[in-house]
Amino acid sequence: MGKEHLLIPGPTPLPPEVLEAAGKQMINHRSLPFAGILQRVIAGAKEVFQTEHDVLLLTSSGTGGLEAAVVNTLSPGDLVLGLSCGFFGDRFADIAEAYGAKVERIAVEWGKPVPPDLVADRLRRDRRGEIKAILVTHNDTSTGVTNDVRAIAEARGAHPALLLVDGVSAVGAVDCQTDAWGLDVVVTASQKALMSPPGIALVAVGPRAWEATQYARMPRYYFDFGEAKRFLERTVAQTPFTPAISVLYALDVALSRIKQVGLQNWIARHALMARATREGVRALGLPLLAEEPYASNAVTAVRVPEGLDVRRLVSRLKEKHGVVVAGGQGPLEGKVFRIGHLGYVGREDILAALAALEEALPALGFPVERGRGVAAAEEVFATALEVLR
Amino acid sequence: MGKEHLLIPGPTPLPPEVLEAAGKQMINHRSLPFAGILQRVIAGAKEVFQTEHDVLLLTSSGTGGLEAAVVNTLSPGDLVLGLSCGFFGDRFADIAEAYGAKVERIAVEWGKPVPPDLVADRLRRDRRGEIKAILVTHNDTSTGVTNDVRAIAEARGAHPALLLVDGVSAVGAVDCQTDAWGLDVVVTASQKALMSPPGIALVAVGPRAWEATQYARMPRYYFDFGEAKRFLERTVAQTPFTPAISVLYALDVALSRIKQVGLQNWIARHALMARATREGVRALGLPLLAEEPYASNAVTAVRVPEGLDVRRLVSRLKEKHGVVVAGGQGPLEGKVFRIGHLGYVGREDILAALAALEEALPALGFPVERGRGVAAAEEVFATALEVLR
Repeated sequence: MGKEHLLIPGPTPLPPEVLEAAGKQMINHRSLPFAGILQRVIAGAKEVFQTEHDVLLLTSSGTGGLEAAVVNTLSPGDLVLGLSCGFFGDRFADIAEAYGAKVERIAVEWGKPVPPDLVADRLRRDRRGEIKAILVTHNDTSTGVTNDVRAIAEARGAHPALLLVDGVSAVGAVDCQTDAWGLDVVVTASQKALMSPPGIALVAVGPRAWEATQYARMPRYYFDFGEAKRFLERTVAQTPFTPAISVLYALDVALSRIKQVGLQNWIARHALMARATREGVRALGLPLLAEEPYASNAVTAVRVPEGLDVRRLVSRLKEKHGVVVAGGQGPLEGKVFRIGHLGYVGREDILAALAALEEALPALGFPVERGRGVAAAEEVFATALEVLR
Repeated sequence: MGKEHLLIPGPTPLPPEVLEAAGKQMINHRSLPFAGILQRVIAGAKEVFQTEHDVLLLTSSGTGGLEAAVVNTLSPGDLVLGLSCGFFGDRFADIAEAYGAKVERIAVEWGKPVPPDLVADRLRRDRRGEIKAILVTHNDTSTGVTNDVRAIAEARGAHPALLLVDGVSAVGAVDCQTDAWGLDVVVTASQKALMSPPGIALVAVGPRAWEATQYARMPRYYFDFGEAKRFLERTVAQTPFTPAISVLYALDVALSRIKQVGLQNWIARHALMARATREGVRALGLPLLAEEPYASNAVTAVRVPEGLDVRRLVSRLKEKHGVVVAGGQGPLEGKVFRIGHLGYVGREDILAALAALEEALPALGFPVERGRGVAAAEEVFATALEVLR
């Protein structure tokens, strides 16, 4: 009967009015009322992407959106830089390889961001302009590291490579200035900072990416950008294929709430949740994986003390406290656990998670001073009450 | 304030308990409770597909499922027969072409089914066994025609071509015996006879299709069958990518309801709705596009009298009566309107639609005898009250 605190990096907990919207009756997806929903969702998404160019809606997870970014802009044999500092950077590169791109990976240790200098150096050596695209994960939820996409965009300078950005857990949680920074494609998904159920990928497509679609020879049908745009521009805006209607109902409500709060406040709220989490965890003596300058607003990866079984910890937090966090992925399995703080996650969830840790760690043989983590988080919250309203 | 009767061939109206499920709070999609949902949905889907082999769940519309069927079993350059008697048969062929298959189309006039003999003849002439697959739409919603998939499967005989079936609007509405007829891949979607919101494609994959995946060289990542199967078979069953959770909540409830009703009763209910619609429309003197032996359980296409503007009719039915039907597609635009009767559509919806026609047709200058269509439908319903319970 205990309440659940869902603190994984997606799906994220949904506000009651969003759940209510998700439970609404179906309507014709090729009708004026539904066109109104699509148009409001796109307008709301453009604000979050900070773009005046196109936003397309695809019925898929975020990964489907990443595949769309690749297949609409590239051709088999194209040389592509795959920047990776974690699981999702690897995935983006894997997708490009699956479709026949020649992917050169710039991979750094999990827990660090990709240095923009490495990108600048590599592009400088590309005198013949062979590199067609750079793939980068704005925020890698496997590590809780945020890449400096702005600096990477600057590192590109005048090189013609497209910049394709996995913003799945970033857009809405961190500042992602699609147009101002010159990002060509940015992908996000409904179930992260946009506090909606999973099922819709949102893709911002800029003018240089549209130009690339003219020459891109990777095969595509379901994820074709051109079709999506043509259908949106019909007299009655629509999608080429029946979309996840209930997810769009939810996004409509969620994006209007974000608009009400204001994008910068929404990002500030994410930063605050993240900071309170980090301070709370640090106060309990647990080290963080990502250092402060690139620690993510979306998720915090916490190193566990030598000898502590992550599975037992995660399971105790869930069973005894209703606090749902995630274990580590890949090389970090067994070494970290991850606290997600995206979307509708609130201060009570963060406090509940820290209080749960204060019970669970001693119970598993790692004594901590009760109240210390919670107090540190409270202190952070107390400095920014206006952000929480 | 009037009630809406959604009578298009998908999305279809949802029962209250399905809507309630769609509005439930998010949980971790990599957890035991969610694995339970996935497993129940798959078990329920296997009954509807009438298969004991695999059923995979993809977060996409039905078209994504069709793309998955193609890219997982074929290679660029493969010769494929694309059977088509309407919009969706053409689409299936287009997908295969987009991925580099050599598609030979067997297309018949819209409103007729594909004759199984044509398939048998063509395969007989394929002495070198070059044809790798046959693409067929079980039920084409553009025309309301049901292809005789069983006879087409028989026409294949011992030829090694795979039979890939678009069962999007068929599975659950007509008898589709995946295993008994030897269908290799059958695709359906959540928003048709399975009375759930759109967002999930369900794909039945048989042993010969699995074998084909070993050699299939079309590129794929998001829609990869192998990954979907590997993740389902983990200790905690899951999907490779975050699925449309609220749609799966809904499918779980909807499939358990279909199980309760019994698949054969569920199909009989669809047949009854379709028959009542056809009798009602005929009694009003309007000719049907599809002849009786191959008229679809899912949707009925009605020819309009010379001089009647379909748009005005569709719009009047919607505005004055809350009855939402669809116009014609492609060559049938302006020539037919389509009444969907899938899933939760009930007798009151059919009666409302016929009553609305009895008002709208005279209002648009085409007098009909009031009550005649409704009476004909009532007569059909009266013969099968037990199916309606």
